[in-house]
Amino acid sequence: MFAFHVRVAPSARMAARRMYSSASGSSKPVVGFIGLGQMGRPMASNLFNKTAANRAGFVVFDVFDGAVADFTKTHDGAVRASSPADVAAQADVVITMLPSSPHVSSVYEQMAPAVRKGALLIDSSTIDPATARRVAKSVLDKVDAVDAPVSGGVGGATAGTLTFMVGGTKPAFDRANPWLQAMGKSIVHCGDNGNGQVAKICNNMLLGSTMAAAAETMNLGIKMGMDPKLLAQIINTSSGRCWSTDTYNPVPGVMANVPSSRDFEGGFAVPLMQKDMGLALSAAQDVKASVPMAAAADQLYKNILATPGLEKKDFSVVYEWLSGLFVRFVRKP
Amino acid sequence: MFAFHVRVAPSARMAARRMYSSASGSSKPVVGFIGLGQMGRPMASNLFNKTAANRAGFVVFDVFDGAVADFTKTHDGAVRASSPADVAAQADVVITMLPSSPHVSSVYEQMAPAVRKGALLIDSSTIDPATARRVAKSVLDKVDAVDAPVSGGVGGATAGTLTFMVGGTKPAFDRANPWLQAMGKSIVHCGDNGNGQVAKICNNMLLGSTMAAAAETMNLGIKMGMDPKLLAQIINTSSGRCWSTDTYNPVPGVMANVPSSRDFEGGFAVPLMQKDMGLALSAAQDVKASVPMAAAADQLYKNILATPGLEKKDFSVVYEWLSGLFVRFVRKP
Amino acid sequence: MFAFHVRVAPSARMAARRMYSSASGSSKPVVGFIGLGQMGRPMASNLFNKTAANRAGFVVFDVFDGAVADFTKTHDGAVRASSPADVAAQADVVITMLPSSPHVSSVYEQMAPAVRKGALLIDSSTIDPATARRVAKSVLDKVDAVDAPVSGGVGGATAGTLTFMVGGTKPAFDRANPWLQAMGKSIVHCGDNGNGQVAKICNNMLLGSTMAAAAETMNLGIKMGMDPKLLAQIINTSSGRCWSTDTYNPVPGVMANVPSSRDFEGGFAVPLMQKDMGLALSAAQDVKASVPMAAAADQLYKNILATPGLEKKDFSVVYEWLSGLFVRFVRKP
Amino acid sequence: MFAFHVRVAPSARMAARRMYSSASGSSKPVVGFIGLGQMGRPMASNLFNKTAANRAGFVVFDVFDGAVADFTKTHDGAVRASSPADVAAQADVVITMLPSSPHVSSVYEQMAPAVRKGALLIDSSTIDPATARRVAKSVLDKVDAVDAPVSGGVGGATAGTLTFMVGGTKPAFDRANPWLQAMGKSIVHCGDNGNGQVAKICNNMLLGSTMAAAAETMNLGIKMGMDPKLLAQIINTSSGRCWSTDTYNPVPGVMANVPSSRDFEGGFAVPLMQKDMGLALSAAQDVKASVPMAAAADQLYKNILATPGLEKKDFSVVYEWLSGLFVRFVRKP
Repeated sequence: MFAFHVRVAPSARMAARRMYSSASGSSKPVVGFIGLGQMGRPMASNLFNKTAANRAGFVVFDVFDGAVADFTKTHDGAVRASSPADVAAQADVVITMLPSSPHVSSVYEQMAPAVRKGALLIDSSTIDPATARRVAKSVLDKVDAVDAPVSGGVGGATAGTLTFMVGGTKPAFDRANPWLQAMGKSIVHCGDNGNGQVAKICNNMLLGSTMAAAAETMNLGIKMGMDPKLLAQIINTSSGRCWSTDTYNPVPGVMANVPSSRDFEGGFAVPLMQKDMGLALSAAQDVKASVPMAAAADQLYKNILATPGLEKKDFSVVYEWLSGLFVRFVRKP
Repeated sequence: MFAFHVRVAPSARMAARRMYSSASGSSKPVVGFIGLGQMGRPMASNLFNKTAANRAGFVVFDVFDGAVADFTKTHDGAVRASSPADVAAQADVVITMLPSSPHVSSVYEQMAPAVRKGALLIDSSTIDPATARRVAKSVLDKVDAVDAPVSGGVGGATAGTLTFMVGGTKPAFDRANPWLQAMGKSIVHCGDNGNGQVAKICNNMLLGSTMAAAAETMNLGIKMGMDPKLLAQIINTSSGRCWSTDTYNPVPGVMANVPSSRDFEGGFAVPLMQKDMGLALSAAQDVKASVPMAAAADQLYKNILATPGLEKKDFSVVYEWLSGLFVRFVRKP
Repeated sequence: MFAFHVRVAPSARMAARRMYSSASGSSKPVVGFIGLGQMGRPMASNLFNKTAANRAGFVVFDVFDGAVADFTKTHDGAVRASSPADVAAQADVVITMLPSSPHVSSVYEQMAPAVRKGALLIDSSTIDPATARRVAKSVLDKVDAVDAPVSGGVGGATAGTLTFMVGGTKPAFDRANPWLQAMGKSIVHCGDNGNGQVAKICNNMLLGSTMAAAAETMNLGIKMGMDPKLLAQIINTSSGRCWSTDTYNPVPGVMANVPSSRDFEGGFAVPLMQKDMGLALSAAQDVKASVPMAAAADQLYKNILATPGLEKKDFSVVYEWLSGLFVRFVRKP
Repeated sequence: MFAFHVRVAPSARMAARRMYSSASGSSKPVVGFIGLGQMGRPMASNLFNKTAANRAGFVVFDVFDGAVADFTKTHDGAVRASSPADVAAQADVVITMLPSSPHVSSVYEQMAPAVRKGALLIDSSTIDPATARRVAKSVLDKVDAVDAPVSGGVGGATAGTLTFMVGGTKPAFDRANPWLQAMGKSIVHCGDNGNGQVAKICNNMLLGSTMAAAAETMNLGIKMGMDPKLLAQIINTSSGRCWSTDTYNPVPGVMANVPSSRDFEGGFAVPLMQKDMGLALSAAQDVKASVPMAAAADQLYKNILATPGLEKKDFSVVYEWLSGLFVRFVRKP
């Protein structure tokens, strides 16, 4: 089974392979998933359910046994692996969804010796591009590997509507594409390994800045006597418009169905936004890029993080931070 | 002529009046225009040409005699006034387009004693909201007055496609509307007097911030190995998108027909952007609003302004400022 | 009396005059004081008490009658004036201590027509340099005028240990000097009119920045496991040292007798620091100077100002703002 | 020889030992030095020269053979080691002076298996506190280890007047002290392992911020008409004073013998300052500390770094960056 992995060079191999199939044409791949957390679990669930006809098996691993037990109990046919190495030894396609760079480094170190020649490794964790490139490089002589961080949050993971930003060769991207389709709606090729992460952190860094800028602008306008809805409407048809004003406005009452209109619950929590800002700023340190706007925004999010009662709010709470309204959420000592 | 001005209270008067007409129904208003500079001249020209059937006369004034002479020579029927007071004494509708708050204060001081009862004063200068409110208040017992700053630049002024952001009562807005239609495409009522200025500076402040944020993000992505066009494309379908990425991208070559693709010539020059940032930051001082993003952006534009060779570039040159590429434009001592 | 005022040109006059005397040598000047607020009252009191032998009279004015009544009651011989013009008509030396630029403009407008030829006007208010220069210019053909803003706070005003930063000609400075000595300890000539204000706001702008920088540094070190006193001690003998670390450390417990060690009560309240930052930033707008550090610090102080419960704290509370400890002071709605 | 290393527990051992001696009292330690770069070479030279009587041998290593050859040729008795492990195998006291965290990690990994039990390891590199703690922890069961980053630059290294900020146990500090005295003037104990680095980066982060703040303040004052020397003098006796105004003023001509007065040559180059800012900001990310001032300053230094012609200037060149005067140094493409 999967003998093709030995015989065919990764790059040549891809073009000839049909979607979801292994090279021999007769056998189906085994799929592995590592990391069954808040994001990973619904992603794995969609992958499990939507690829049933296209795979031979589904093995899962998580450091928390309970997460694995829960998954195998609710997904008939899913099998517990004993370690990342065990997943790598069994699976032809491995998706990882882990919290941070050190986790990804560790899991790839464990998988590297055991990985099946010709396998496909997809890392959907959001980590720094340098680590993404390093872990990919550590396995690319034996397998295809892509970084494929996501946007869309737990909601998108559950609904299977995530956006995947994929870094890797074109053949590796093409090979990963059908599996990612099972978990998302938009799969974008961003260039070579690491570029998925670059695209993700660039977008989120800009989001962190534009949200802070939108929040302070709305606050200023309101303090100067403007109606918030009218101000948003004017900006949204002018040169100041951005996603943070027209889709996710941070002022309570301006838009329905956004976190600002439900006490900043749900959405994209400050610690997650700040994590991404941190990754972007760290990358900017690596390449010595001056990013004064993101640096200013990042400090705001860290300041909010340090304030008891705001730690889990959606990042658009930066509006209330600047206006002083946030004190309603403060947890006093 | 214009006897209605005496008899009808400003607010009641409006509802009964047909567009472009004076209250009596038989007489047409005289139009005055003060400030025939880079913006004012094309605006006055459109107003002159498109309202010929709806007005009785057209008087103009500028502190530079040559500007007036040139206008009257090229617009048959336009008449030179000797001063702002002279314009005010003759015209039923007066549009002012001046460089800064002190100019507007001075012109309104000169017009106030001479203004025709029931006239309509439209100030299209971009100035601080406090001054806009003060000058309006100084004449509102005798006339209707609105602040109506524009966006769209010299191009929009020439094409007659400006956006007007109007502050004043609803009747005053309705009364100003047809005249503004002659010079622009989108006429937006922003609330009471001063709110046109508030909307304008809020939008432009946010624009200044999002452009700087977009520029640093593109620079980071490029330094990390991303193709600029691809990065822009990804951001433009994601949560980081803004006018500065999808309509006016600051990286040369990403979009055609924007200043970044023609050595940052034309467009919205750094001093103009910085002037608007300064107005916004000054307003933020007045109301004690914390605007850390705009404050950071403003310092960048001032830093650029202080650099010989960059003074007249489009504000999107902030991309080259951050990347170091700007040195190609530097004028050494 | 004071006939010399008429006969002697201001600049020549000064050199020949002995301290505290009028030019004739026989007559003593009348002193006027306008603005008996928190700072003005103790200043006026010291001036009254320490110059008894050197003056012929002492007239006072304040917009609050109660302040004047209280002063005249407790300072035997002090006489109530009915207006700034009345002070100007009677006094040879007039000190003003007012809250802001518009107040100074207004008082000087009232004094200008009434001012005694050859008088000396000293404005100790902290205002923007442009206004300081304008009001001085408005009276310099008839009198000597200096701007002489102070540092040292209410404590220094009471103890008579203020520092005066004086802008004006050297003769005017020399003439003002003895009167200022009665209220302060250090009298510094900073150059021409307005430069007293420039020196004051430059110093305070830098103070606002270094305090914020010191606060964030102490917070970082503490979070990284350093003992605060030890960290302060190391910095204070190294290149990071500044007044905010070695004289006014913002971390509670590091130094005794500073606001941080008494719940940030007393000292230099956030609104006063922010007022001075605002003046400096406004001046920086006027001359198009890029001041990114002060701009960042200013936003912090405005953010603190917007937070209920922190409005009156000493400005070193920025340490608790950044560390999250400030929530203990928050006043919830 | 050095049998005490086996028999005595590290912490108990120290108290009983006389300076410079090994525990037995009869034998002298061998000293090792790794990293003979710009800083390391003069440090090693001083250590070699001043401890001749107190040591049994001196072994050196550098990845550049030429650096080693040059050192052994000019320091009679110094012996080349073949690797960090070789140094560790021979020396009782090992000083490392390396460019960055990865270098230190690598050298400690190489030394760990070979290190003499009971040895003393002193790392004088400036690196992130987390790495400092990790490498110390990796060897503390067998040896004493301290982090001892320096301030004072190449000048201080040559003159033997460096300041060492030392992190480690008190006994380890006491044991390191005499060796550090041979290279520096001020040896400060900052607490446990890593705290030397914390103190260093906190101080330098604050320095980076105060220098930028001092520079922008001087620029503003000068633009407002103040004499630079007078402004510096006033600030230096007021609450805005800091090392960057009173010892290392960034405005050419204000002080003699500082980099600003020699075209910003020599001193502490922008890349070195930016490296330390980067370490501090990275540490701030680790502990989620909001450091808005340092973040703003860091972006300035990175912006300067990106500008051809400024890369090697002293960090006080930030004054010319803000004032626009820097264009005289620009290297055009």
